[in-house]
Amino acid sequence: MGSVAMDSDYGAPRELSPLQKARALYQPELPPCLQGTTVRVEYGDAAIAVDVADAHVISQAFPHTYGHPLAHFLRKTANVPDATIIAEHPVVRVGVVFSGRQSPGGHNVIWGLYDAIKAHNSNSKLIGFLGGTDGLFAQKTMEITGEALSSYKNQGGYDMLGRTRDQIRTIEQVKAAMATCQALKLDALVIIGGVTSNTDAAQLAETFAESKCQTKVVGVPVTLNGDLKNQFVETTVGFDTICKVNSQLISNVCTDALSAEKYYYFIRLMGRKASHVALECALQSHPNMVILGEEVSMSKLTISDITKQICDALQARAETDKYHGVVLIPEGLVESIPELYALLQEIHGLHNKGVSVENISSHLSPWASALFEFFPPFIRKQLLLHPESDDPAQLSQIETEKLLAQLVETEMNKRFKEGTYKGKKFNAICHFFGYQARGALPSKFDCDYAYVLGHVCYHILAAGLNGYMATVTNLKSPVNKWKCGSAPITSMMTVKRWSGSPAGSQIGKPAVHMAIVDLKGKAYELLRQNSSSFLMEDIYRNPGPLQFEGPGAETKPISLCVEDRDYMGRIKQLQEYLEKVKSIVKPGCSQDVLKAALSAMASVTEMLTIMSSPSFSGQATI
Amino acid sequence: MGSVAMDSDYGAPRELSPLQKARALYQPELPPCLQGTTVRVEYGDAAIAVDVADAHVISQAFPHTYGHPLAHFLRKTANVPDATIIAEHPVVRVGVVFSGRQSPGGHNVIWGLYDAIKAHNSNSKLIGFLGGTDGLFAQKTMEITGEALSSYKNQGGYDMLGRTRDQIRTIEQVKAAMATCQALKLDALVIIGGVTSNTDAAQLAETFAESKCQTKVVGVPVTLNGDLKNQFVETTVGFDTICKVNSQLISNVCTDALSAEKYYYFIRLMGRKASHVALECALQSHPNMVILGEEVSMSKLTISDITKQICDALQARAETDKYHGVVLIPEGLVESIPELYALLQEIHGLHNKGVSVENISSHLSPWASALFEFFPPFIRKQLLLHPESDDPAQLSQIETEKLLAQLVETEMNKRFKEGTYKGKKFNAICHFFGYQARGALPSKFDCDYAYVLGHVCYHILAAGLNGYMATVTNLKSPVNKWKCGSAPITSMMTVKRWSGSPAGSQIGKPAVHMAIVDLKGKAYELLRQNSSSFLMEDIYRNPGPLQFEGPGAETKPISLCVEDRDYMGRIKQLQEYLEKVKSIVKPGCSQDVLKAALSAMASVTEMLTIMSSPSFSGQATI
Repeated sequence: MGSVAMDSDYGAPRELSPLQKARALYQPELPPCLQGTTVRVEYGDAAIAVDVADAHVISQAFPHTYGHPLAHFLRKTANVPDATIIAEHPVVRVGVVFSGRQSPGGHNVIWGLYDAIKAHNSNSKLIGFLGGTDGLFAQKTMEITGEALSSYKNQGGYDMLGRTRDQIRTIEQVKAAMATCQALKLDALVIIGGVTSNTDAAQLAETFAESKCQTKVVGVPVTLNGDLKNQFVETTVGFDTICKVNSQLISNVCTDALSAEKYYYFIRLMGRKASHVALECALQSHPNMVILGEEVSMSKLTISDITKQICDALQARAETDKYHGVVLIPEGLVESIPELYALLQEIHGLHNKGVSVENISSHLSPWASALFEFFPPFIRKQLLLHPESDDPAQLSQIETEKLLAQLVETEMNKRFKEGTYKGKKFNAICHFFGYQARGALPSKFDCDYAYVLGHVCYHILAAGLNGYMATVTNLKSPVNKWKCGSAPITSMMTVKRWSGSPAGSQIGKPAVHMAIVDLKGKAYELLRQNSSSFLMEDIYRNPGPLQFEGPGAETKPISLCVEDRDYMGRIKQLQEYLEKVKSIVKPGCSQDVLKAALSAMASVTEMLTIMSSPSFSGQATI
Repeated sequence: MGSVAMDSDYGAPRELSPLQKARALYQPELPPCLQGTTVRVEYGDAAIAVDVADAHVISQAFPHTYGHPLAHFLRKTANVPDATIIAEHPVVRVGVVFSGRQSPGGHNVIWGLYDAIKAHNSNSKLIGFLGGTDGLFAQKTMEITGEALSSYKNQGGYDMLGRTRDQIRTIEQVKAAMATCQALKLDALVIIGGVTSNTDAAQLAETFAESKCQTKVVGVPVTLNGDLKNQFVETTVGFDTICKVNSQLISNVCTDALSAEKYYYFIRLMGRKASHVALECALQSHPNMVILGEEVSMSKLTISDITKQICDALQARAETDKYHGVVLIPEGLVESIPELYALLQEIHGLHNKGVSVENISSHLSPWASALFEFFPPFIRKQLLLHPESDDPAQLSQIETEKLLAQLVETEMNKRFKEGTYKGKKFNAICHFFGYQARGALPSKFDCDYAYVLGHVCYHILAAGLNGYMATVTNLKSPVNKWKCGSAPITSMMTVKRWSGSPAGSQIGKPAVHMAIVDLKGKAYELLRQNSSSFLMEDIYRNPGPLQFEGPGAETKPISLCVEDRDYMGRIKQLQEYLEKVKSIVKPGCSQDVLKAALSAMASVTEMLTIMSSPSFSGQATI
C-alpha cells in the first residue's frame, strides 16, 4: 500500500462547530426491511432495458451482467414464501471509492455500509481508497473505523477519503482497478458516483465477471446534478441539499432585488448539462425567469432568440414600472443552444486531435469561426478550456450568465435608441452558484437516503450480486415506507443513435445516460402553470437556510414530491397481482373462472404488446 | 401624498415558505427594563466626543445637539431616585425610513417601534416612507399596520418599504425632509442606516432644532458592514446574519477545496472599507488566509507585497504537498493598498470635476497612469465606475479577488520558471459573496437586537430627545441582561485631520466615521494566534447553515463575544461609585475618612488627566 505526504490528512479527526457536532450525533433511521440482521431477498423478473430496441446491443456488450433479475430486500417476517433469507454472513472485505465530484451526503453512504458490514460480522473490513479513483488505481487505502467515521457522519464534502476523476475506463485503469481488488482480496467494490461512474462500474463488473475476478462491483447513485434518474432511481444523494442551499441564496437575491429595485440578477447554477437543479430551485424560490436547457433544445432557440425572449420579458416588467428581477440559468444551457453546441463539438474534436488551445480558433470551420469571433474575449477563452469527464466543455467555467447579461444589455440599448423601449437603463449583476453549495452539510433527507443506500450496498454483496446499483424507492414517503432493492446497472442503460452520418446510422456504446428534465413531467408542468405570475408578480418565496430542526427540516425536493414514481413498488405490486391470478386460477377451478381469466389476460397482453412496440409514441416516458 | 405604480407592491401580503411562516410567528423577548408600559429615564452626564481635540469643532458645528446627556432606560421599579418616569404618552405621529443598503433585521426595527408606539397609545401612528430616502423627500408614505407587518416580521430585506440612497445631505434634500416632517406633523423621524445615514441624521436633527421644527430625529445602527461601532454601539443589526450566511458558504468552499485538493478559492466579501465581516467570517470558518485591509494599511503593503505574501504561503503549503486552499479578501482591501488608494482618489477627484469616464484615464498623473495601465482591462473598467455613497469607488464592483488571483498566477509561473518553485500549477476559482447574503432571513440575534432597538426608539422620542441614536449594550449576555439607552449621535463623531497639505493642516467635517478593525483588539488577537495553523493545517470549521432552532441558533458573532465592551454599563457603574463616595463622605464624616478620600481621589484624577491628554498614546482605544 502506498503512502505519501498528502494522505496524512485523510480521515483525520478535526474540530467541529457546535452544529457539526450535533449533526455528527444524528442517527438516521432505517426502513423496517433493513432493521435487524436478518434480511430476505426476493428476486423479481429479469430486468430489461427501458427501450426494447437497445436490449440486444446491451446484452451483447454485457453478456455476464445483462438480463439479471431485480432484487427486493424485505424484512425477515415478510410474508413472501419465495424470498431467500441470507443466513450466512462470512467475513467480507469491501472497498469503497468516491468517484468524481463531491456531493453532500457521500460520507453517509460509507457510514451506512460500515454499520451494515459490522452488524453482520464484526470481523469484516471496510477499506477506503484515498484520493478517489487515483487511490483505487494506486492501491492507496485506509481502513474505515468507527473512530475515523465519527467526525464525518452527516457531514459534507468528500474529505474523509478525497476524490479525483469520475472515470475508471481506460484499459490501464481497468487493469489497475482489478489488480487492486485482487491484491486486497476484496469481496466487493462500492463505487459512489453519478452517471459516468456508474456506467464505468457496470463495465468493471462485466470485465471482472469475464476475468473470473471474485470482486463484485456495486454502484451508488450520488451526484448533486440529480441527473441519474430512471425507472429504478428516483433521485440522487446530494440533489436535495444543493437545491436547498442554492434556493436559499436565490431567494436572498430575490429579496435583495425587491428591496433595491434597480438590478437584474443573472444567476448560473451548477448541475452539468441537465436543468434539474435550476427547475427545482425555481419551484422553491419563484424567481422571475428560468431558462431550462431542455426547453431551449426542444424549441431549437438560438442565443439571439433567448436574448430577445429575456428582453421582451424585461420590457413587459418595465411597463409595470419594475426594473429589477432574477433570472436563473443552468450551467448546461450553453450546450443546449444549437449553434453553441455545434461550436463546442468542433472545439472538442480539435482537443481530441491534440490541437493546442492557442491554435484551436484558427482550425475552426468558417461558420464556427464567425460565431466564435462574435463572442466577447472572456467567453472565447472559456469555450476553449479542456473539458473534464464526459462533457464536451468545462461547463462550470463558461460564464453564460455574463454573456447573456451583456447581450441583453446591448439589445435593450438598441431598443432604447430605436424608441421601442422607453424604460430605465438595464443593470445586471451576475452570480455563479456552485462551489459554495457542493461542500454543504447534507440535509436530513440526504443523510437518511445515503445512509440507507450504504446499508443496501451490503445486502447486495451479501446476496452475491455483481454490477448492481443500490436503490431506495418511494422516497417521497416517510423513511418507514421506503422500499429497498437493487437493479442491474445494465438495465438502466440506453444506446444513442445518430442517423444521417456518412456510414448510415451510427450507434454509441451502451451507457447510463444523464436524464434530462421531462418536459411532460409534473414538475415542469408546475413551473409552466406559474411562470407568468413568477415573471410579473414578484411572488418570491424564501425557503430560508437549510434547517435541521423545526419547520422546513423534513422537506424534500418539490420535483420529487409532485412526481408519482415508485416504479420498484409497482413492479412488486404487479408481481403480486400475477401471483394472485395464478393462485385463483389453479387446476380444478371452474370453467367459467378459467374462461374469464383467459379472456381478460388476452386483452391485457394485446394492449401491452402494442404499447411496448418501438413505434408506440409514449414509450420513452418512465 | 404621492402614489405611483411602483408603490403598489410595498407592504403587500405575500406567500411565505413554511420556515418563513414559522419565523413570522417568532416573538422576540424584551429586556426587563422595557417590559410593561412604564419606563424610567435616567440621564447621565453630558456625553463628550471620544477625542478631546475634536470636541470644540463638533460643538461649534452642532450647537443645539452636542453635549447632551446620555440616557439610560430603566424599569419602573429600578432603585434610582433621580430617574424620571415618563407618565404621559400622548398620541404621536412617527415616520420611519430605510436609508441605504438593506441589512437583515431592518424590518424588526419597524416592528419593535410599532409595538412600542401602540402599547403606549393606540391612537398613535407609524408612517413608513416608500422607496427609502426618495420617498421621504417626495412624501410617499404608507401607514404601518399590524396587518402590513405580519408577513415582514423576522424577515430579511427592506422590501416592506424599499430603499434608495443612504444620504440626506444636500440643501434640497434637507429642505424636502423638513417639509415632509412638517406636512405630516411628525413628532419624530426614525432613520435606519449605517455611518453615513446616522451622520446625516445628526445634521438633520441640528437643522430641525435650529429651524424650530418640532420633529425629533432618531438614528438606529443598522448595517451589514458592522462598521458603525464605537463606545456606545457594540455591533450593528445585520452583521451577525451576514457573517453567518457568508461563513457557511466559505466553510462549504473550504470543504470543497479539501475534497478535490486542486483549487485555491479567492473569496471577496462585501462589507465596504473596513474588514469586520472578513475578520468575523475567518474566526467562524478558519480559512487558510485572510488579508485584512487594516493590516495592509498599517504595514503599507503594496499590491506586489501582498501578491508575494500569498505566493510565499502557497509555496509553504506546496512543500507539504497541499495545492488547495481558501483566501478571504474584504472588498475594501482595494482602498487599503496605498498606491491603489492614491489612484482611486485621483479618479474620484476627476469624477468630481465632471470628467467623463471615457476621458479619466487620459487625465491621470503620469504615476497614476502607469499603475492604471499595469492592471488588466476588467479592473481598469471597474476602477472607473462612479462611486456610491461616501466611498471613493464602487467597491462591490471591483474584482480584487480576480486581480490577486491573476497576479499570484503570474508570480507562481515566474517562480516555477526560475526554479524557485517546484510544485504543481496554481489553479484559482474566484467568488464574491455579498448580494446573496444581504437579503437573508435575519438570525435570532439580529431579530432580537433590531426589535429591542425599535422599542428604544419610542422611548427616545417619548423623552423628547433629538439627534440621539438608540443603543443596546451588554449584547453578548442573554436578552434579559441587555441594557437599553441612548447617546447623542454627535458624541460618536470624530474629525479627520490631514497634515502636510499646502494650506497647513486641514480638518474635515465632524462625522460618525466608519470604525476599522482594531489591530489591538481581542478578535484580531485571536485571529493572529491561530493564523499559522489556519494557513498550514486546514483546520476548517463549518458553522453550518444559519439555524433557528437547536444547536447554533443562539450563537452571536465571535468578535462581539471575545471583546469586553459594555461601555454604557461601565459608565453607569462609575456613576454609582461616585455617588457612593459622595454618600460616604458627607459633611459630618470623620477627618480620617475625608483625608483618605481626598488623597485617593487626587491620585485618581491625576492619573486620569495624564491618560486623557492628547499625547497619551493609548487614547484612541475604546
